[in-house]
Amino acid sequence: MSRTREWFAPPGAEDGEAVLQFYNSLVDEKVPFIPASGAGSKQITWYACGPTVYDSAHMGHARNYVTFDVIRRVLEDYFGYNVLYVMNVTDVDDKIILRARRNHLVQRYKQQETDASKVAKEIEAAVQAAVSKQAKKQQAMAAQAAAATDSRQRTELEAAVKNEEHKAKQLQQVQEAFAALVAGGATPSIEAMLAVASDQLAEQLDAAHGSEVVDHGIFRAHAAKYEAEFFEDMAALGVRMPDVLTRVVEFLPEIIAYVQRIVDNGMAYESNGSVYFDTVKFREAGHVYGKCKPSSVGNATLASESEANFETSEKRSQQDFALWKAAKPGEPCWDSPWGKGRPGWHIECSAMASKIIGAKMDIHSGGEDLKFPHHDNELAQAEAFFHHDGCRQWVNYFLHSGHLEIEGLKMSKSLKNFITIREALTQFSARQLRLMFLLAPWNKTVSYGETMRAEMRAKEQAIKNFFQNVDVALREGEAKQSQTAAKWGEDEMALSAALQEAQVKVHEALTDNINTAAALEALSGLIKATNLYLAGKQAAAAAAAADGSSVSGLLPAGPQPLLLRKAAAFMTRILSVMGVLPGPSDTPGFGGEGGAASDAAGASYLDAFAMFRDEIRGLSKAKAAHGELLAACDRVRDDTLPQLGVRLEDRPDGKAIWKLDDPAVLATEQAERQAAAAEAARRKLANALDKKVKELDKLQKLAALPSEREALADRYSAFDEAGEPTHDKDGTLLEGKAKDKARKDLEKARKVREPLTKKLAEDPNALAAMEAEVAELTAQIAAMQ
Amino acid sequence: MSRTREWFAPPGAEDGEAVLQFYNSLVDEKVPFIPASGAGSKQITWYACGPTVYDSAHMGHARNYVTFDVIRRVLEDYFGYNVLYVMNVTDVDDKIILRARRNHLVQRYKQQETDASKVAKEIEAAVQAAVSKQAKKQQAMAAQAAAATDSRQRTELEAAVKNEEHKAKQLQQVQEAFAALVAGGATPSIEAMLAVASDQLAEQLDAAHGSEVVDHGIFRAHAAKYEAEFFEDMAALGVRMPDVLTRVVEFLPEIIAYVQRIVDNGMAYESNGSVYFDTVKFREAGHVYGKCKPSSVGNATLASESEANFETSEKRSQQDFALWKAAKPGEPCWDSPWGKGRPGWHIECSAMASKIIGAKMDIHSGGEDLKFPHHDNELAQAEAFFHHDGCRQWVNYFLHSGHLEIEGLKMSKSLKNFITIREALTQFSARQLRLMFLLAPWNKTVSYGETMRAEMRAKEQAIKNFFQNVDVALREGEAKQSQTAAKWGEDEMALSAALQEAQVKVHEALTDNINTAAALEALSGLIKATNLYLAGKQAAAAAAAADGSSVSGLLPAGPQPLLLRKAAAFMTRILSVMGVLPGPSDTPGFGGEGGAASDAAGASYLDAFAMFRDEIRGLSKAKAAHGELLAACDRVRDDTLPQLGVRLEDRPDGKAIWKLDDPAVLATEQAERQAAAAEAARRKLANALDKKVKELDKLQKLAALPSEREALADRYSAFDEAGEPTHDKDGTLLEGKAKDKARKDLEKARKVREPLTKKLAEDPNALAAMEAEVAELTAQIAAMQ
Repeated sequence: MSRTREWFAPPGAEDGEAVLQFYNSLVDEKVPFIPASGAGSKQITWYACGPTVYDSAHMGHARNYVTFDVIRRVLEDYFGYNVLYVMNVTDVDDKIILRARRNHLVQRYKQQETDASKVAKEIEAAVQAAVSKQAKKQQAMAAQAAAATDSRQRTELEAAVKNEEHKAKQLQQVQEAFAALVAGGATPSIEAMLAVASDQLAEQLDAAHGSEVVDHGIFRAHAAKYEAEFFEDMAALGVRMPDVLTRVVEFLPEIIAYVQRIVDNGMAYESNGSVYFDTVKFREAGHVYGKCKPSSVGNATLASESEANFETSEKRSQQDFALWKAAKPGEPCWDSPWGKGRPGWHIECSAMASKIIGAKMDIHSGGEDLKFPHHDNELAQAEAFFHHDGCRQWVNYFLHSGHLEIEGLKMSKSLKNFITIREALTQFSARQLRLMFLLAPWNKTVSYGETMRAEMRAKEQAIKNFFQNVDVALREGEAKQSQTAAKWGEDEMALSAALQEAQVKVHEALTDNINTAAALEALSGLIKATNLYLAGKQAAAAAAAADGSSVSGLLPAGPQPLLLRKAAAFMTRILSVMGVLPGPSDTPGFGGEGGAASDAAGASYLDAFAMFRDEIRGLSKAKAAHGELLAACDRVRDDTLPQLGVRLEDRPDGKAIWKLDDPAVLATEQAERQAAAAEAARRKLANALDKKVKELDKLQKLAALPSEREALADRYSAFDEAGEPTHDKDGTLLEGKAKDKARKDLEKARKVREPLTKKLAEDPNALAAMEAEVAELTAQIAAMQ
Repeated sequence: MSRTREWFAPPGAEDGEAVLQFYNSLVDEKVPFIPASGAGSKQITWYACGPTVYDSAHMGHARNYVTFDVIRRVLEDYFGYNVLYVMNVTDVDDKIILRARRNHLVQRYKQQETDASKVAKEIEAAVQAAVSKQAKKQQAMAAQAAAATDSRQRTELEAAVKNEEHKAKQLQQVQEAFAALVAGGATPSIEAMLAVASDQLAEQLDAAHGSEVVDHGIFRAHAAKYEAEFFEDMAALGVRMPDVLTRVVEFLPEIIAYVQRIVDNGMAYESNGSVYFDTVKFREAGHVYGKCKPSSVGNATLASESEANFETSEKRSQQDFALWKAAKPGEPCWDSPWGKGRPGWHIECSAMASKIIGAKMDIHSGGEDLKFPHHDNELAQAEAFFHHDGCRQWVNYFLHSGHLEIEGLKMSKSLKNFITIREALTQFSARQLRLMFLLAPWNKTVSYGETMRAEMRAKEQAIKNFFQNVDVALREGEAKQSQTAAKWGEDEMALSAALQEAQVKVHEALTDNINTAAALEALSGLIKATNLYLAGKQAAAAAAAADGSSVSGLLPAGPQPLLLRKAAAFMTRILSVMGVLPGPSDTPGFGGEGGAASDAAGASYLDAFAMFRDEIRGLSKAKAAHGELLAACDRVRDDTLPQLGVRLEDRPDGKAIWKLDDPAVLATEQAERQAAAAEAARRKLANALDKKVKELDKLQKLAALPSEREALADRYSAFDEAGEPTHDKDGTLLEGKAKDKARKDLEKARKVREPLTKKLAEDPNALAAMEAEVAELTAQIAAMQ
């Protein structure tokens, strides 16, 4: 082989013993894969660069982790390797520190500032400062690109300029949006202004007050939150958990000892409380620096981007990089032989991987943009650390996943053109996203866009249809076991040949740098052949029915279950090898017997069952009211089970039935039920209010009327103690009929006022009380809307 | 390599490219395995000699089919080969013809014969004839063994003599049993006599009337019945179905064409309507005859056993064998170029395998005793058929499974020492049987016996315990996802090392002629390491609780879920590779997606859950006592869930935990608990009875005593109304001290009778009631025993 770069092939790799070929970034070509533990060994070690947990993961991350999940599954489940898969979580890092500190400062600012016009001015200034800074950066880079003589370097720099232009455009949009917001005359709310330009304000706040942030808990909480979110996202994408998870905060002693040994080996030096890797001494000791991306060695832009805040003046050589960073105000720090400080970004991976895996690993993976400086520095550190063990190649195969592109630009946090995994999962199923990645070479760029939805749905549907068709044919055929197995005819020979062809093609595809697109293509061929086979069988059955063979009992043989099952089993195996279906090791145990629940759903049912029973026992022991027991029964129906995708329906006969459904659908139903119940409650209150208002109205009208005596005053002039008139308006004593009439007049007058008098007899303050009730009801109803 | 026998190694096999070594009967040593399709290919063809469906399958068959099921699974699921697994069903064969015809004749005899004494005489004669025939056969064989000069041949012949002795002994037992049956004087029923000696009668009936059987349906129905039974047995044993099933009746045209081509190639000849393979011409054409077992070539006994009814006089050479047998009365037959007839036993496999697989196959499997003549003839036929294609080695790897031995003798139909698969499955679980086979080398003899039960149960239980322990640890730990993942300590490093060791050992074991015993041994090592790890974690947690660390919140890290899951996943993978757990391709498809319960277990949990809740609701609505609610909680734990394989354990903290187990195991536990409870109840009743009897005894003794007045009668002569003595025995009025003494006497007398009087005061019939109670208790206790 005539490689332009040195690579020490593992013994056996060059003898044609390897089945699998891998595209290795260390040589930028496909090379045979042989484990370091020997050509016949199945043991593999793998260190995967994990997330820096400073923000929500986006689809660019999904691309990286799903891609390597696929490769890992193929190695484990197809090639039968036992992989030790180690992944780190970067939880001490510039980005985390910056983000946590800025979030904290913006929060503090929000709580403290009340003068909106002052805030408006400050934000305006902050945005302007960001615009100016960006313009300078862009100019400098454009100049650099124009001056580049190496065509490759120029291409890279031009791409970087394009990115900077994109950022400038975004900043301009922010500036315009902010100008529009404040243009109205009246100063907008502080919240509204921050919603537009909090990033730019945060930058200014951080510059002014960053050093005041001393509580390390702020950084820890920030990292912990996004670590948890990251693994939730990975689970949603069906990415297998790593075997070993390492965090920087857990490995401080190992990291410090690692740096110390590199210093002791003469390939690092302390400078002003920081420790730098000595690239000159490293080369002098016979090592090569920049193995993943030699072309980027010396690229100051790339190098400085990863080392945002270290002092170049402290370094002996421009290419040197920080292993340990002296403490600065507003940053977490730990004690070390060089004073307080924190690890550089690159050292953690070398130290943690060396601790768990050792002086040689098979595979190291990461995203394309980590090649330089991160991975090249990592390799240098490890070789320097293991120098006296003769280590000249710490990693045998360095795999880099391609970018995810959206509208022609790499999706990234800094370009702010990212779509979070959570957002994407509202548009695509996890399986569709995986299919999207599987259809591209793992080490090449993938284009993401909503236009892919229809295509991925169709791909998924074709697979579903295949399984459903086979399932129907199997259900019909397998009931009779071996009796259904008839002699193979031409159709069976053809389908068997198609299956063999698919098997051979899948094997060739997977051995060729894990070409999943070609493997899926081979499966599509098998799907087509199977559909053809089933259609032929149906046509034959239809023809037999038409020409009367069915009457004579001489039916043609139906679809052959053993053959169909074999085709379906192969499809299942390869799809699960790629993670499109759950893999065999995703559910360990004896199944429904020796311990592990046969599946997660079964386990969740039992969990819920046991908890419900616990509750009933507790209530019964406490001799709770029966109403409470019934409420517990309602809760399990309305909350617990719907979350497990179970719809429980109570029936009048007291026997509830259950159905399975999508938990999201059930949640929607539950929300609708609750809304309806709330609406009913509101309406009930509204009715009560209505009634109360009418009653009050009536009583108040009565109260406004003259009293009985006043009402009778125009007809009678004197009354006795009981209030009965005794004399007419002329002063004549009432007697006989006139007295009767006077009594009736009084009764009538009393009748009119009766509702009021009764009410007041019960409670002299009844009207005031009713007014209070009306006010209360009105408030309650208002609160419900 | 210095092999004594010629073997054409597939290209690549001798270059060290092979991972797997197979014991190949063609050379009787381990050789590297390389597919005929190429060293890098994953395509394998396999032809397995299937059952001759003439009777129920026994454990000897189980040994064969489970063994090759294991090897097939290891090739498919561990080494990742795509195996095309073809199996035949021999449904046209001497044994089937004989058995079907004899069954038919015995049935006819039963229906026709009514004279028991005539039947007795005929059966007696039939048994005597069988005894004489057997004696002659045995003598001839013993003479042959004595005359043998080759030591290997002599050993084989001596073993054959031993078998004949066994048969003679069995015949003698039949004769004795029959003699005993008819010795009573009165002639026994025809059924009773046939139950003892129908085989011997059948032989005589067949000799006399066999040729009268002409209905081919009799043979077809017999074969179909036992084919169905065979596949039911295989399913019960967890043996994967073949990919292709071939039956002789379906392949007559291909078989006839096959014979014709061998005739055309000059290596077979027609003789008297039959066709024989010409071993002389075959050798002259450059082929080797007797590749599997050269030492048996020329062994007339073995050759003739497989060719029970053909005429040696028709053959040109003693080693020639029948490809086509001219029709005889009482046998099914088909038209052919040589007149009516039927295929010989060996030709079907060559013809069917050639049709489906072709001129070269990777693996051919069968039981040890098929080596010669069956497999050697099969190889010769195929080479003769493909002679002009240059075929000199039709099969690259010929695998023969070892025998199953019971009490030192090979289990076989002819020795009548067999245990059917169905019988064995009442004593062992399918998994236990499989473990039994896995613990022996596949190509060596396995000893079967009920004494293995305890051993296999223990093996199975150790695996179950492992999964249960891991499952409980995972359930506790995984709830918090990645947060539970702590930095690895010494314990984790040790367990990870143990896992890697197990992985390496399993790989070495499986590559070494699929040494499943060594693989299981490696898994045992992993189980031990895991138990040690979990115990260590528990001890650490207990120590922390004891020294107060739990109070300060500084708990030691619990068992690491990612690592435990990895160990459990490896266990699961290897156990399913060996078929101890269901394999990944046993359930193809998208799984529980479209609405159906994800599995039957989940559905049964939900059923139980819903029913329990129904009950609680019903009880709560009826305002039942809290004790009843608690009783319902107990029932669901003690009855409902155990039936579903769920063991619910209440804990003092009110949080029950659940484990899955075999419902049979749980039922046993429940029965034991119930027995203990019943015993406690019985003891309680016995104690009550004891007490009651003592009390009754005492009261009855008191009742038998004289009354108080009678007791005082010897001292006093008169009493007042209250029963106090008024005069002494001499009639003197009692006064002063005498009166006091008399009162004391009365009190004493009353005291003695007090228990009785009190009892009678409560209930005048108390003694009778107590007698009834004692009788009732006695009866109750008797009923409980």
